[in-house]
Amino acid sequence: MSAGRLYGVGVGPGDPELMTLKAARLLRSAPVVAYFCKLGNRGHSRTIIEGFLADDVIEEQLAYPMTTEVAASDPAYRTALTSFYDASTARLSAHLDAGRDVVVVSEGDPFFYGSFMPIFHRLSSSYETEVVAGVSGMAGCWTRAGTPITYGDDILTVLPATLGREALKRHLELADAAVIMKLGRHFAKVREVLEELGLAARTVYVERGTMAGEKILPLPPADFTGAPYFAMLLVPGQGRLL
Amino acid sequence: MSAGRLYGVGVGPGDPELMTLKAARLLRSAPVVAYFCKLGNRGHSRTIIEGFLADDVIEEQLAYPMTTEVAASDPAYRTALTSFYDASTARLSAHLDAGRDVVVVSEGDPFFYGSFMPIFHRLSSSYETEVVAGVSGMAGCWTRAGTPITYGDDILTVLPATLGREALKRHLELADAAVIMKLGRHFAKVREVLEELGLAARTVYVERGTMAGEKILPLPPADFTGAPYFAMLLVPGQGRLL
Repeated sequence: MSAGRLYGVGVGPGDPELMTLKAARLLRSAPVVAYFCKLGNRGHSRTIIEGFLADDVIEEQLAYPMTTEVAASDPAYRTALTSFYDASTARLSAHLDAGRDVVVVSEGDPFFYGSFMPIFHRLSSSYETEVVAGVSGMAGCWTRAGTPITYGDDILTVLPATLGREALKRHLELADAAVIMKLGRHFAKVREVLEELGLAARTVYVERGTMAGEKILPLPPADFTGAPYFAMLLVPGQGRLL
Repeated sequence: MSAGRLYGVGVGPGDPELMTLKAARLLRSAPVVAYFCKLGNRGHSRTIIEGFLADDVIEEQLAYPMTTEVAASDPAYRTALTSFYDASTARLSAHLDAGRDVVVVSEGDPFFYGSFMPIFHRLSSSYETEVVAGVSGMAGCWTRAGTPITYGDDILTVLPATLGREALKRHLELADAAVIMKLGRHFAKVREVLEELGLAARTVYVERGTMAGEKILPLPPADFTGAPYFAMLLVPGQGRLL
């Protein structure tokens, strides 16, 4: 018997209709579908794929032991996450070894900050692997916000809000357009830098773009504390438009 | 009678199966479908949507009077393109005024360097407009190349190869991961900068990612002259991977 095939499938930014035809086809025919979520929470991925699974599908819920409670710089974070990925890999390998194809769901695009990457890293040299590109979360956000992000020769930079103030400034000064991700508790710092650089007026705040509970706002005031980890800021480019 | 609705629909990087479910639905039901191409050439967009159109669809082919023959800095370029977009807009407006919905096809994602932008700019304040995000060309390329582009806190910069040597260097020095687009005759210059920065070894060349005639190569040698305008270089990030 030959081993199953591993698929890393991007399911897009949240609206199930922004899934690709290929993602929908693979989900419908997969004997095993794995998805990430937070412990005790069904998760966005599972919500997106609802209605796309075969009746007899085997679901593998991969529940992160933590998400933002522990800082990524804390050694405990690394240890816990590494064990989690090793254990997840073992569960998926058992299916692959038994000849069952496995689809691992990735929100957005698997190779762009995708949750699939640690699985890909561990398994792609042992099993036949195919990755399916998806609409990125940021594309979902700028589309719903009605703000074209780049025109003509604009330079786009995608930054994590976790960067220090000086690094943020250096990057934002150089870019024509920017997407600042992983906002959460870094909002106030990022906002100050945007103000300093005169970018605040054209910045847009987006939370849950294309999903239920979507929020699209002009840059909130400095005392705003409601930004979740997955909220992002968009600084649209102003490039050549004919 | 009420006016038609304007849709700017991303159809993804080239493989028709990387179209979203929503794009496929809108294409199938649209009374009018418009797409860009080069004069005398059917174009990628039309190839992608083959098989997705209603039998009685009205096709509006919007044929660019020029593409890369005239430099974008030449005033003749601006004049010719502006007239072309004005004339295209007039053709689409006639359908919208007659109550017919119009789908304008955009390769990749409409708001990310999309060909739809000049139409959006001219018509979105006059007609009800909806934009549908798509899988970007670059996501199609890095997926097919098998090279995850960003991990963890990587910073991604998207650059046009048209930039001067010093600007290219400044941006590439700062980024963890990069996508260099619109390669064409700028290949040799970009390659030199990548060599200088020690990035050449991990750079990948992609042409027609996900399409017929796809080419994926390690960074070609300095005397390579075959890069078309739409080829791109990928410099994958090396971020935290658990």
